[in-house]
Amino acid sequence: MQHLLSVNELTSSDIQELFLKAKQIKEGDDHWCAPQAFAANIFLEPSTRTKNSFYIAEKRLGIDVVDVNGSDSSLTKGESLRDTLKTLESIGVQLAVLRQSEQGILQELTKDLRLSIINAGDGIGEHPTQSLLDLFTISEEFTSFEGLHVTIAGDIKHSRVARSNACALKKLGAEVSFVAPDEWKDPTLGDNYISMDEAVETSDVLMLLRVQCERHEQPAAYDDYLSTFGLTVERERRMKKDSIILHPAPVNRGVEIDSSLVECPRSRIFQQMTNGVAIRMAIIQTLLQEEC
Amino acid sequence: MQHLLSVNELTSSDIQELFLKAKQIKEGDDHWCAPQAFAANIFLEPSTRTKNSFYIAEKRLGIDVVDVNGSDSSLTKGESLRDTLKTLESIGVQLAVLRQSEQGILQELTKDLRLSIINAGDGIGEHPTQSLLDLFTISEEFTSFEGLHVTIAGDIKHSRVARSNACALKKLGAEVSFVAPDEWKDPTLGDNYISMDEAVETSDVLMLLRVQCERHEQPAAYDDYLSTFGLTVERERRMKKDSIILHPAPVNRGVEIDSSLVECPRSRIFQQMTNGVAIRMAIIQTLLQEEC
Amino acid sequence: MQHLLSVNELTSSDIQELFLKAKQIKEGDDHWCAPQAFAANIFLEPSTRTKNSFYIAEKRLGIDVVDVNGSDSSLTKGESLRDTLKTLESIGVQLAVLRQSEQGILQELTKDLRLSIINAGDGIGEHPTQSLLDLFTISEEFTSFEGLHVTIAGDIKHSRVARSNACALKKLGAEVSFVAPDEWKDPTLGDNYISMDEAVETSDVLMLLRVQCERHEQPAAYDDYLSTFGLTVERERRMKKDSIILHPAPVNRGVEIDSSLVECPRSRIFQQMTNGVAIRMAIIQTLLQEEC
Repeated sequence: MQHLLSVNELTSSDIQELFLKAKQIKEGDDHWCAPQAFAANIFLEPSTRTKNSFYIAEKRLGIDVVDVNGSDSSLTKGESLRDTLKTLESIGVQLAVLRQSEQGILQELTKDLRLSIINAGDGIGEHPTQSLLDLFTISEEFTSFEGLHVTIAGDIKHSRVARSNACALKKLGAEVSFVAPDEWKDPTLGDNYISMDEAVETSDVLMLLRVQCERHEQPAAYDDYLSTFGLTVERERRMKKDSIILHPAPVNRGVEIDSSLVECPRSRIFQQMTNGVAIRMAIIQTLLQEEC
Repeated sequence: MQHLLSVNELTSSDIQELFLKAKQIKEGDDHWCAPQAFAANIFLEPSTRTKNSFYIAEKRLGIDVVDVNGSDSSLTKGESLRDTLKTLESIGVQLAVLRQSEQGILQELTKDLRLSIINAGDGIGEHPTQSLLDLFTISEEFTSFEGLHVTIAGDIKHSRVARSNACALKKLGAEVSFVAPDEWKDPTLGDNYISMDEAVETSDVLMLLRVQCERHEQPAAYDDYLSTFGLTVERERRMKKDSIILHPAPVNRGVEIDSSLVECPRSRIFQQMTNGVAIRMAIIQTLLQEEC
Repeated sequence: MQHLLSVNELTSSDIQELFLKAKQIKEGDDHWCAPQAFAANIFLEPSTRTKNSFYIAEKRLGIDVVDVNGSDSSLTKGESLRDTLKTLESIGVQLAVLRQSEQGILQELTKDLRLSIINAGDGIGEHPTQSLLDLFTISEEFTSFEGLHVTIAGDIKHSRVARSNACALKKLGAEVSFVAPDEWKDPTLGDNYISMDEAVETSDVLMLLRVQCERHEQPAAYDDYLSTFGLTVERERRMKKDSIILHPAPVNRGVEIDSSLVECPRSRIFQQMTNGVAIRMAIIQTLLQEEC
């Protein structure tokens, strides 16, 4: 495996192998002897969490990091992304972590590259490392994905994460439902839409999505989102025993979830972040292992 | 000690211990075996000197640094500072160095955090590492603070440094005077205001403050600041034998000090910068030592 | 040698020594035991390639890097460049790599500095590491510079690279011609101007310059640049056997060179980037060696 562009490329056994590696990393039982290596983190859209998570994963593996962002780079001189990648490859970079806004350009971009690419979000397309950390967090809580009921709630249509997760969860044997206002439903994902009230009572995993106010034009229209589609304190009380709450963060407190629930016992929101570093380390090791 | 938010929290003996550690660091007699650790430098207001000084202190201690600034982070997605800190903690950061513009929010921010915070300037409030490097620089030149006459000159009212230094100097036994135009006097610091002409003849330490043009609206009003309140070449000649000049930098050459005096024999301005790295290393060691 | 400000300062034997060192570095036969050292990369004008190339060179030598750029630093507080350098020196930086837009200020800036400076481009003046990597790339292909015909094509008048390269190439024994529209000719470089058609048939090395659209006001005026002064597919076919193409990049595909030629067999464009890291490592070693 040279690149990680989509979670769809991975078989169930690829995924289980990554989870095993991430678990070993978390337990400190990790024997990776990196040669001197360089990664480039190319974030053309803002992100604290994903960028810093990759940075820490890379540094913990002993990899040095070149930081490329849209504003200070020669991308302002009209240089194409392809030429940027060829340049980074030429100066000794083995891995590029890339977030950019155009969906579906990665297959073409990676043609004839020697360096490895990890897709860290391509517009509303894929964000495979986020999917894998979500799934890994679920795998820590339940003995199997078989028969697990997972509900994904929010802007399904514009979410990188919903798309990837639904696909991977089904592959692993889980049953997936959705909660969404009509205008955010995605017909390509089937018709398994339920109400939030049904979701809290039947789900083992409630996966809330961020309301991406910055991608929509009328934030005012979603004023009563919380009461209709969000996780209120009252709804959380009706959740199944041992069920958990996930959210990719950053959270809009009081929009998709009541602020007081962000750090509640069922919440795995900060655990997801911790797991994000481990799963990214596991992915990077897998991509670079042949160079060791 | 988990955090360093204000120099007021420190006892005289805390301060003396930090000075001893900084001295050992400068002498190369430093036995710190850092485990892999991460610091986040969060500078929401511009600063070359403080940010780079912390960076070098951290790297010299073997600590890897995550750089967070206001413009490229998810802080632009409306993420709260508290959530940023929780996120950094979750992904493995042990220390956050934080400069931001709101005074007095740090006590609340640090509640239930596992990571350590160093206040690197909170608006016009505190800037404890600057105070400690100033005091450390004085301690290198004089055998004791007892009976030392220190004058702080400039915009006392809007200065983080004036406030912290006055407080700490008195605690250590020094006598503190101030020089300031009426509109920059701070009544909460007492009434020990003298003229610059008196200051140069009686002070062992003359601590000039930066005229923070960017915080004031009428820079033109301070055109004759140098002749009335600044250190001219003529005044420097009347300074006491062995007295020294401090300035937190960046200097406005020709405003608070004549340009030719910046590198004069009495000036410890660049020495302060060198000491800043050592004192910050000492502070970081102290905060993180229980994790070793 | 403390600084590298201009390629004109170097003798032929200095240059040959750097090439030998760079060659050894590329072959992995490199015995440099760096003490803990810090470099500051100060890029006040945008650049991906040069900045990242220096960064990788520095990190491969075990040097930690302080990143200073115009937008987030105290340079926005009116701090002078000289004071920035003195500050960096005071906090422990041994090497500053500096790109800024004012030509000819470096000699004055370096007065009484202990740290070393590498000029990474001063406006339309010099860019010595680019020159050296160009020359090094030529040296890998030909047994000697004596009698070699090198043509530099493009905006000679506004190019840092043209100026430095022409000078160094003549010093090493090569014959240098130029191709340029009248308004881009530089009379101080002599009158050896030829047509592009003559150039392709007589040159061993064809060194294309970037059309720096961002420095010119009427980009529309250069619409037919490719057909008159650029390297078309048809012209490339007429090039001498074993001749090579250089370009400092980023390339304007379809302006100075046909897009399909960027990765053609004669092109050394990506090889130049790889060589840039090696030659910068060699330069840094040479500048810092007395500190080892």
